[in-house]
Amino acid sequence: MTSLPPAVTAVIDALSALPGIGQRSAERLTLRLLQTGDSLALTLSQALQDMTTQVHECQRCHHLCEGTLCSLCSDPGRDQHQLCVVESPLDVLALERTHSYRGGYHVLHGTLSPLRKVSPQDIRLASLLERLREGEITELILATGASTESEATALYLLQEAEGIYTGSVTRLSRGIPSGMQLDSLDVGTVTRAMTERRSW
Amino acid sequence: MTSLPPAVTAVIDALSALPGIGQRSAERLTLRLLQTGDSLALTLSQALQDMTTQVHECQRCHHLCEGTLCSLCSDPGRDQHQLCVVESPLDVLALERTHSYRGGYHVLHGTLSPLRKVSPQDIRLASLLERLREGEITELILATGASTESEATALYLLQEAEGIYTGSVTRLSRGIPSGMQLDSLDVGTVTRAMTERRSW
Repeated sequence: MTSLPPAVTAVIDALSALPGIGQRSAERLTLRLLQTGDSLALTLSQALQDMTTQVHECQRCHHLCEGTLCSLCSDPGRDQHQLCVVESPLDVLALERTHSYRGGYHVLHGTLSPLRKVSPQDIRLASLLERLREGEITELILATGASTESEATALYLLQEAEGIYTGSVTRLSRGIPSGMQLDSLDVGTVTRAMTERRSW
Repeated sequence: MTSLPPAVTAVIDALSALPGIGQRSAERLTLRLLQTGDSLALTLSQALQDMTTQVHECQRCHHLCEGTLCSLCSDPGRDQHQLCVVESPLDVLALERTHSYRGGYHVLHGTLSPLRKVSPQDIRLASLLERLREGEITELILATGASTESEATALYLLQEAEGIYTGSVTRLSRGIPSGMQLDSLDVGTVTRAMTERRSW
């Protein structure tokens, strides 16, 4: 039994359904939305509505977009012969922040997981194989994460691509993250860094 | 220059305007709102709209409500002779969670602050003095925070109440918070705990 009116608890409930936002944080955020006057709450409300109605996956790479193709697929300045496979649109943002890559992407929207019952048809794998089959790609970059599920997904993709794709395959390097000391890292990371050491 | 469509960045911008939510968190939350399908984003959108149009301050205690009086002011089971003064609706929630108080509240919606240019007429002080003047209150509980601004606000209130209010005045106790060790606390807290020690 709360002392708050239902219209307020409805916002708190919706916010606390989001990852990393507990009950207390949701209360604080909601109160802040009320305090900032009507503008921020209504702005957010409208933005959510617009997003739901206007945004969908890019027909080609499955990144988020409003039209047919996303801004990356329709950018003539990008090398569409390079194809970087990622798990989520967030990974595209992370890579774009680096300004170290000017090729195309393919967003899988998940990883294979027998436990969570995610099978190949639940992620954007068929359309990726289709893109490889077209023969335009010369470098396939596996930029999935470093978890077991992510690695299994990359391996499955390579198996499926066999016979279809003959270009080069690369993956993101593994090793010591920037700014970290060796003694604060797990054994797996340090092992990788040693076995995959590069010449100075 | 982001690779995301404007309808998505609008949601990210609105979320990152909230306290404690940075750019990256806002991106993650927005992507999650997109992933959970239309339902959560639209639920939140509608809830925000409802909250903005339906919720206002209780005419009596300034807690949040939808009607004329809030659920606490209109609860006949609560002792309206006790009046607990707090800074924010969040403080009401914090006290209600304890189930240790069954009286009334008065929400100031802020603290006095010459630096931030918050003067007595900017917080709900006049209506509090009005309630004290009515003569129904027998215990005034000062439940403002422990910051300098909060204490100054409580002191100012006591000055203003002089001559108007003749009942008892109490304040929340100060001391060692539950579960803490003395050596991890600041000098001020330990000093308070010692000088305000109670008989076993």
